[in-house]
Amino acid sequence: MKVDGTAYRSIWPEADGRAVRIIDQTRLPHRFETVRLESLEDAAHAIRAMLVRGAPLIGATGAYGLALGLARDASDAALDEAFRTLLATRPTGANLAWALEDVARTVRPLPPGERAAAAFARAGEICDEDVAINYAIGEHGLGLIRAAAARRQGRLNVLTHCNAGWLATVDWGTALAPIYRAHDAGIEVHVWVDETRPRNQGAHLTAWELGRHGVPHTVIVDNAAGHAMQRGLVDLCIVGTDRTTATGDVCNKIGTYTKALAAHDNGVPFHVALPGPTIDWTVSDGLASIPIEERDASEVQQVWGRTEAGDVAAVAVTAPGSPAANYAFDVTPARLVTGFITERGLAAPDGLGRLFPERLAAAE
Amino acid sequence: MKVDGTAYRSIWPEADGRAVRIIDQTRLPHRFETVRLESLEDAAHAIRAMLVRGAPLIGATGAYGLALGLARDASDAALDEAFRTLLATRPTGANLAWALEDVARTVRPLPPGERAAAAFARAGEICDEDVAINYAIGEHGLGLIRAAAARRQGRLNVLTHCNAGWLATVDWGTALAPIYRAHDAGIEVHVWVDETRPRNQGAHLTAWELGRHGVPHTVIVDNAAGHAMQRGLVDLCIVGTDRTTATGDVCNKIGTYTKALAAHDNGVPFHVALPGPTIDWTVSDGLASIPIEERDASEVQQVWGRTEAGDVAAVAVTAPGSPAANYAFDVTPARLVTGFITERGLAAPDGLGRLFPERLAAAE
Repeated sequence: MKVDGTAYRSIWPEADGRAVRIIDQTRLPHRFETVRLESLEDAAHAIRAMLVRGAPLIGATGAYGLALGLARDASDAALDEAFRTLLATRPTGANLAWALEDVARTVRPLPPGERAAAAFARAGEICDEDVAINYAIGEHGLGLIRAAAARRQGRLNVLTHCNAGWLATVDWGTALAPIYRAHDAGIEVHVWVDETRPRNQGAHLTAWELGRHGVPHTVIVDNAAGHAMQRGLVDLCIVGTDRTTATGDVCNKIGTYTKALAAHDNGVPFHVALPGPTIDWTVSDGLASIPIEERDASEVQQVWGRTEAGDVAAVAVTAPGSPAANYAFDVTPARLVTGFITERGLAAPDGLGRLFPERLAAAE
Repeated sequence: MKVDGTAYRSIWPEADGRAVRIIDQTRLPHRFETVRLESLEDAAHAIRAMLVRGAPLIGATGAYGLALGLARDASDAALDEAFRTLLATRPTGANLAWALEDVARTVRPLPPGERAAAAFARAGEICDEDVAINYAIGEHGLGLIRAAAARRQGRLNVLTHCNAGWLATVDWGTALAPIYRAHDAGIEVHVWVDETRPRNQGAHLTAWELGRHGVPHTVIVDNAAGHAMQRGLVDLCIVGTDRTTATGDVCNKIGTYTKALAAHDNGVPFHVALPGPTIDWTVSDGLASIPIEERDASEVQQVWGRTEAGDVAAVAVTAPGSPAANYAFDVTPARLVTGFITERGLAAPDGLGRLFPERLAAAE
């Protein structure tokens, strides 16, 4: 999407063909800085230190990291070592393992002299595939927004939680793809951006990317989403998901569940945008089966932001000595979901299997 | 309640009888500092600059402020002027107007030479009356907690939102009064403290006062309350209220509504602690009739906390240029409230009129 008029992806190959460039997301929204990744170590650091985040973008960065490693040493041993190094940066990321395996499978049969170029090309394809999936999610979501806008006078108000925008993917995003498509198509859309404590991805990243692309938006604290729905200020909710069960239970950033409850209580449609690969066909009861990551309490005890002097620093917000708990995700039961927006079209909460019959069959 | 072993109220007369002392709540939880108020101006500043907050404490400070003003000049003109000055510090506070009128009515018939002492005495009575109301709320809530604890093995988990503790009143608090009573009675209670963005009264004040009194507690972000209830980690919710309709609709700090939704969805009892005077007998539909204050966007765009150097400073958390909306309160419909805890006992959502028949009759 655009940053003040210039089109960007979140990762792209450099013109010299020897490196890739990323946006340093740890600096956002305070500074917009890009970083050149020239080596396996650069790529591993970018993932580990969260210069890149979002499962699809982590996968793409890993794929390019493997290519950069092979450019220095394309032996079987170096390939194995690079694979292990990159996988260890974020061991639980499904997209990362999948992208690394894809590239390794592509290059292993080739003579060492051809491996780096082939890996670089394959990483590029992985990026393009991600963009195509998100573009298709945007296309199907656009239909939904168009219909809602037709029923409404004036601008359409969409609420989103966390960041499921282009910064989390290679481009377009998942939850934000329909919004960008609608905005670009001239539909008057305004986005309510949940701050999304504790890491504030809404206030930091979603607000930044919407603002830079020119999409009207307003940041609210997470506490205000229910009130906004109660007062008729929200026409539609669209959120992303980290993992969705075959039965439509949605695991997503902490707080998604209470937004869904408020939407349900006020008759506001609640949609989840997701690429097919994030569906976990092996799990049917999300509440019982999906383990919830507990992260470090310091994320709750501190808040990061810009100081008056222009630095980026943390301030402690809890009473000294008070313990904090930091649940990173929650599960929204399928009964609270109006529908899913996928690259293959829209689905009712119990309709994911009909959109992806071959994957459902493969899991059974 | 206690601060590290020493009993405190939030306002108390100095031994010399010429001043009162308060806790500077703008410094909490980062520093515990008390401030001596010696004049009408000191008291007005304490209210205006929010060194004191919480409707009952503002009322008490106003009452003492009038007494301090009369100590310098007890003429009718000075009384009127002091009244106007203090009322203007927080023009919408019902408790403040009520306390000022009470003191003025008490002293006006007296000869000027007796007014200051009478006002000082009456302000003390107003404080004692607030403490008695909150103690009674604690007594009735204690029964509720005792019953819940008897049904449960191990510690009882109570969730609260914002700060309705002793710092918001003269002592005990409203929502926290039952918790202090239970803790002091040896019942094992643990409190989940919602951070309460945007002003973080939970993380700042509730966590501080519970911690200093020795009550086990854990701070969570507002987003996590639903998840905690879904996972069975909450036995009971108790919140305060700024204004409650005769029909049981509860206006309270933004985010109360979504906590009530989560409690309802998970079968967790949701109680509201309130002194009778906060019931608005003239309003029956809270959603339609209670105007919601919109405060400055900067409260959402910034977060205050302790820097690494130990200073208290704000950091900006939203993307530069992103607008923010700041709704200060929301309305929880009576259908989501399990019951009310008042100084006259417990009431079902539709039962407030039976507890306060004379006030209901007076309003009709």
